[in-house]
Amino acid sequence: MAATFVIAQGGGPTAVINQTMVGATIEIQRCHPGARVLGARHGVRGIRDGDYVDLSAMPEDQLRRIGATPSAALGSTRDKPDLAYCDQILAGLKKAGADSFIYIGGNDTAATQQILAKAAGGSIAFVHAPKTIDNDLVENDHTPGFISAAEFVAGAFLSVDLDFRALPGVYVGIVMGRHAGFLTAATAAWRQDDESGPHLLYVPERAFSVPRFIDDVRATLSRHKRCVVAVSEGVSTEDGKPLIESLVAPDRLERDAHGNLKLSGGDLGIAFEQALRDGLPGVRARVDTLGYLPRGYIGAINDTDSKEAFDAGAFAVDAAARGGGSVALQYDGKKTVMQLVPLSAVAGKTRHMPDDFLLPDANLLSGKGTAYLKRLVPAKFEIGRPFV
Amino acid sequence: MAATFVIAQGGGPTAVINQTMVGATIEIQRCHPGARVLGARHGVRGIRDGDYVDLSAMPEDQLRRIGATPSAALGSTRDKPDLAYCDQILAGLKKAGADSFIYIGGNDTAATQQILAKAAGGSIAFVHAPKTIDNDLVENDHTPGFISAAEFVAGAFLSVDLDFRALPGVYVGIVMGRHAGFLTAATAAWRQDDESGPHLLYVPERAFSVPRFIDDVRATLSRHKRCVVAVSEGVSTEDGKPLIESLVAPDRLERDAHGNLKLSGGDLGIAFEQALRDGLPGVRARVDTLGYLPRGYIGAINDTDSKEAFDAGAFAVDAAARGGGSVALQYDGKKTVMQLVPLSAVAGKTRHMPDDFLLPDANLLSGKGTAYLKRLVPAKFEIGRPFV
Repeated sequence: MAATFVIAQGGGPTAVINQTMVGATIEIQRCHPGARVLGARHGVRGIRDGDYVDLSAMPEDQLRRIGATPSAALGSTRDKPDLAYCDQILAGLKKAGADSFIYIGGNDTAATQQILAKAAGGSIAFVHAPKTIDNDLVENDHTPGFISAAEFVAGAFLSVDLDFRALPGVYVGIVMGRHAGFLTAATAAWRQDDESGPHLLYVPERAFSVPRFIDDVRATLSRHKRCVVAVSEGVSTEDGKPLIESLVAPDRLERDAHGNLKLSGGDLGIAFEQALRDGLPGVRARVDTLGYLPRGYIGAINDTDSKEAFDAGAFAVDAAARGGGSVALQYDGKKTVMQLVPLSAVAGKTRHMPDDFLLPDANLLSGKGTAYLKRLVPAKFEIGRPFV
Repeated sequence: MAATFVIAQGGGPTAVINQTMVGATIEIQRCHPGARVLGARHGVRGIRDGDYVDLSAMPEDQLRRIGATPSAALGSTRDKPDLAYCDQILAGLKKAGADSFIYIGGNDTAATQQILAKAAGGSIAFVHAPKTIDNDLVENDHTPGFISAAEFVAGAFLSVDLDFRALPGVYVGIVMGRHAGFLTAATAAWRQDDESGPHLLYVPERAFSVPRFIDDVRATLSRHKRCVVAVSEGVSTEDGKPLIESLVAPDRLERDAHGNLKLSGGDLGIAFEQALRDGLPGVRARVDTLGYLPRGYIGAINDTDSKEAFDAGAFAVDAAARGGGSVALQYDGKKTVMQLVPLSAVAGKTRHMPDDFLLPDANLLSGKGTAYLKRLVPAKFEIGRPFV
C-alpha cells in the first residue's frame, strides 16, 4: 500500500510557512509516486476532526502559487494538546493511515511531536519542520520566517527614522518577541551610521527599567534631537516579570490557551505613552504596535527565506524516511545547511539572543550582532543622506 | 542677476515628497542655468531662520538618490504661520533674494502660500506643489504620496486577512486619515473576492456608531468566521465629533499647533479593544495602529507615484515662471495631467471621498470606488487560494 503523509501548520503564521508545506508536498510527489499527502486544516485540530485537504495530486504550479502566499494556507492552531488530546490525534493519524506526520511550527510544535512520537511507539514517523519569526529554536542558526520578518522591521525602522529626522520627537515601536530579542535587534539591521536610528533596543534578555529607559531617551534626544526605540513586547523587569504585568491593571491582562500573557495589544503601548508623558513632559512622542505585519507582510518576503523554508519542507520528507526528528537550519561558516536533530533537542526549549549581540553598556547592536544580522538580512535599499 | 528659487517641504512626510523637491531642482538646473536653489530646512522655519542647504550645483546622481529616499530630506514642520510669522518668512525670502518659493505640502501648505502671495504683492512667485497621503486636496484626481501609502495598506490588509484566515478572530487596523477616507478605502484595493477582507471599512465621511460597529462585526463573524476591519483615525460620531472624544477621557486628549486633536495614538486602539471586549465577549480580537508606516515605508514606494511626484516638482518650476499657483494632478480619462490652478482653489479646503465610493448599505467599496483604486493601485502580487 502507498505511503500516507500528513502535513500540518501550527502556531503564528509566517511569510514563508507555506513554502515548507509546498516543499514537502512536491518532494513527496517526486520521491514517493502514488503516496497520499493529506494537509490537516488548523493543525492537529484537523487530524482530530478528520478535516483534510488532499494535496496528493495537486499540480505543481498551483502549489508554487500557494508557496508564494504568506500565512498558513492550511490554517493554524494555538491548541497545545494534553494527553487525552494526543490520544485523539494518534487515533486520527491511524484512521488516516498515516505513516508520517510533518508538523511545521515552533518549539511548542516540536513538543507536541515529541509527545506523539513517544505515545505512538515507532509506528509513525514524526517530523518537526522549523518555523518562527522569533528565531528562538535551539540547534538552529536561524529559522524559516525570521529573515522575512527581519527584513520588514529593518525597512520599517529605517523608514520611521527618516520620518523622525523630518519631524523630530520620540518614536517607540513595539515588536513581537516574547522571550527572544532577535526580531527587535533586526530593527537595526539597516542602520546607516552612528547617527541614525533605531537608537535604543530593548530585548527580553535584559532587564527593563522605566527610569533607565527615560534616562536613555533623554540622553539620545540631547545627542540626536530625535530618539527611535525598538522594544520587544516581552521585555521584563528585574524580577523577571513581563513589564506589562507591572504597567497594566491585572483585570486587563489576558492569557491564551498556553497560559501565555497576551503581550502585544495596545495596553503596553499606552503604558509606554504614559511613561514618556510623565518622564519627558512636553516632548512629542509616538508609540506604535507593529503587530502582525512583520510576520506576514506580502511586500517583504525574502527570497533566501522562501528558498530555505521550501528546502526545510523537502528535507522533512527525507527526515521521515529516517524515522523522524526535528529539521534544523545550521550554518557551516559559509552557507546554511539542514541537519536532522532529535525532537527532544528542540522541544519546548527557547534559544535566547546571545548577550554579546548587544554592546555591554548600551542598547545597541555589537559588532557580532551586526555581523549576524547583515549576513541574514543584507541591505536592500540605498538611501540618500537627508539634509537634517 | 541669476534667479533664486527657495524650496521647502511641509506637513507629514510621504514616501515620494523628495521626488518633488528633486524634480524641481533638476528642472531649475536644466532650464535656468546659473540659478540658485536654496532648500529651506524644516519648512518655513528654515526661511525665517535663514537655514538653507544649497542645492544649486548638487550633482544629479546625488539628487536622484535623495529622490528615491522616503520622508522629507529637508526636514518638515507643523508650524502654521500667523500674520507676524508670515512677515518673518517674507523678510527671510527677501533677504535670500528669492524670486520664487515652491512649498511642497497639503492644504495647510497651500493656505500658507496664499497668505504669503497676498502679502508679497507680486514680487515673488509662490507655488504650492501637492503632497499628502490623505489624498484630500480639491482640484486633484489624486495626490503624490497617496499611491505609495495606498499600496502599503493594500498589502498590509491582504496579509492580515490571510493571517486571520489561519487563526480566526477580529482584526481592527487603524489607518491615518483625519477627514478623508481614501487611505482607509485603499485597504480594500487588493481584496480578492467577496469572501476576503477587509470586510468592513469605516471612514470619516460616514457617522460611526459603536453599537452598529459591534453588529457589523458580529454579522461578518457569522458569515466568514473572521472579521478584518479598517478604520480611519478620524471617524466621527453622529454629532460630528471625533469618535476619540467620546471614547477617551478628556485629560488624555492632545492637540497640535493647528488645534487638531492627536488622533492616532494608542488611545483609540484601546477604546476599540474595550468596545470589542464589551460587545463580543470571549471573541479573539486584535487592534493595531498602523501609525507612520504607510506614509514612508521604503518597501512600498510605487513607481507611478515617484514619477508623478517628480513631474509635479518640475511642473512647479514652470508654474513659478507663470506667476505661481497650485499644481494639481488631474485625470483626463486616460492619463494623469498636471494643471496650474489658483492657490485659493486649494488652500485650506478638504476633498472628501465621494459617498458613492462605498456601497449605500454596507461598509464596502462600491464598483466606482473599486474602479478608482484599481486604476491607481493595480494588484502587484498574485496569491494562491488558502484551503481554509
